[in-house]
Amino acid sequence: MIRFSVTILGSSSATPTSERNPTSQLVNHHDRLFMIDCGEGTQVTLRKLKIHFQKVNHIFISHLHGDHFYGLIGLISSMHLLGRDHELHIYGPPELEELIYFQLRVSQTTLIYPLVFHATRSDVPGIIFEDSFLEVSTFPLNHRIATTGFLFREKPGLRKVIKEKALEIKIPAWAYEKIRKGEDFTDGEGNFYPNNELTLDPPPPRSYAYCSDTAYHEPVVEYIKGADLLYHEATFMNDREANATEKFHSTAAQAGKIALQAGVKKLILGHFSARYDDLQPLLEEARVNFPEAYLAEEGACFEIPVAI
Amino acid sequence: MIRFSVTILGSSSATPTSERNPTSQLVNHHDRLFMIDCGEGTQVTLRKLKIHFQKVNHIFISHLHGDHFYGLIGLISSMHLLGRDHELHIYGPPELEELIYFQLRVSQTTLIYPLVFHATRSDVPGIIFEDSFLEVSTFPLNHRIATTGFLFREKPGLRKVIKEKALEIKIPAWAYEKIRKGEDFTDGEGNFYPNNELTLDPPPPRSYAYCSDTAYHEPVVEYIKGADLLYHEATFMNDREANATEKFHSTAAQAGKIALQAGVKKLILGHFSARYDDLQPLLEEARVNFPEAYLAEEGACFEIPVAI
Repeated sequence: MIRFSVTILGSSSATPTSERNPTSQLVNHHDRLFMIDCGEGTQVTLRKLKIHFQKVNHIFISHLHGDHFYGLIGLISSMHLLGRDHELHIYGPPELEELIYFQLRVSQTTLIYPLVFHATRSDVPGIIFEDSFLEVSTFPLNHRIATTGFLFREKPGLRKVIKEKALEIKIPAWAYEKIRKGEDFTDGEGNFYPNNELTLDPPPPRSYAYCSDTAYHEPVVEYIKGADLLYHEATFMNDREANATEKFHSTAAQAGKIALQAGVKKLILGHFSARYDDLQPLLEEARVNFPEAYLAEEGACFEIPVAI
Repeated sequence: MIRFSVTILGSSSATPTSERNPTSQLVNHHDRLFMIDCGEGTQVTLRKLKIHFQKVNHIFISHLHGDHFYGLIGLISSMHLLGRDHELHIYGPPELEELIYFQLRVSQTTLIYPLVFHATRSDVPGIIFEDSFLEVSTFPLNHRIATTGFLFREKPGLRKVIKEKALEIKIPAWAYEKIRKGEDFTDGEGNFYPNNELTLDPPPPRSYAYCSDTAYHEPVVEYIKGADLLYHEATFMNDREANATEKFHSTAAQAGKIALQAGVKKLILGHFSARYDDLQPLLEEARVNFPEAYLAEEGACFEIPVAI
């Protein structure tokens, strides 16, 4: 089974606390590591969790508020100082590229590895990464400055050949891949077997949707519909809804409401205001709308199981 | 007695480890806080040490290698988000100002407090801060990029009036400050008292010298001569002297040698390479040249006593 998981590196909003780091997450798909956002101190958190950060090859930055990217330049520098030799891809608003090179210039640093920058757009959705296993796309959020959500969606897998049938009609080795891709099969004696008699559907592709930071914004529902796992910011509780709206943030109740409308399977809450020492009330508030809600906590890992 | 102390916030070189933060220090003089360098994560270290960071009004950046300033923008932002209402003075290479404003611009942040930037020069020494109690000056170091050391030197204090003498000749209250400043005194009956019969010398002004990062560089000795406390980087041990020279860094033995030549009272070693888990051998190496050597360790506070 292909692993698909999300590890929380930071769950705090604007200012870090002594307990919570600013936002960062690590998506593991098929043992490849994708980072989402990179608040100050993320490289140290990776070390503490014993995650080898040279294995991170793609970093997605949702927007240019400091708590989502002030750790990026330090990580880029450490990768350089520790002898990285392979490409690092960074996806984010266009000004981020200029800022990275400005920072490297003032320290007179020429990276010893290739850094490939991919500018994102926050006005329209779009696919920004794709390979045989996975596709990552952006969608617009409703924040004070240009901000994108990210959707990680698996590519459909190959169909599953029915073992008994394969033995019965003696499918030759060369035909397997074609059949798994959906082709029908005709044996040497001219007997025709439609694909649906030979195979079962592959497990449905899984998806992870990341919504940070955003005001309550129903248009996101169409992009994240049916996600297996949704991260949605929950900076405040509902008694501060006006405050949340003014700051283009969401409440825990609103995060639960979006999860419900989108029919996702599980919800992670995060980006908690430093005013909350105890996060349990936020969790309970979200669970009123959506019982399968959980708290983002530093180091917590959410596995996305294959649906049976 | 006026307090004069140095607290270590970070002691690591280029890359942080899970135990050691990148460089930052806090000088407390007369309960005013001056920060020197501000590596990534410094704001969290301040929180952990329960130091109220809005009390920091002056930040000195020695040079623009990331491990000395990547925490600055996060600290500036948090000061803003937490409602700072008074000036913050930053001293550093001119490009730093541009970089700060670029970072604020991309997040569309207009600081709610005044940020006053003072550009430093690394080619000549110069006074960059002065008030009634203290003077801070820069001096050139020998590093790969423009780098300054900092010297914190107390202003001479007022002379100490000899209590018995004051009672004997009945010095009136209004004359005290003048006498403490060194003036002679003539009483109502025309009796003349030269100042040296009325007062004792004030305690000698104390000083703290900060040398990071630099190759072994004897010209610094003239600037730091007789300092009460010297911080000198000691990235490597002497078996890697060639490596140190190539990277414009120093060894622990070299730090001890500079301390000896400068006739300082006490030496702090820091900026340790991540290769050293155990720092004791670096300390022992420095102590061969200069026995009063100590290790910079996160949270350690070095008090500078008044000489008697």
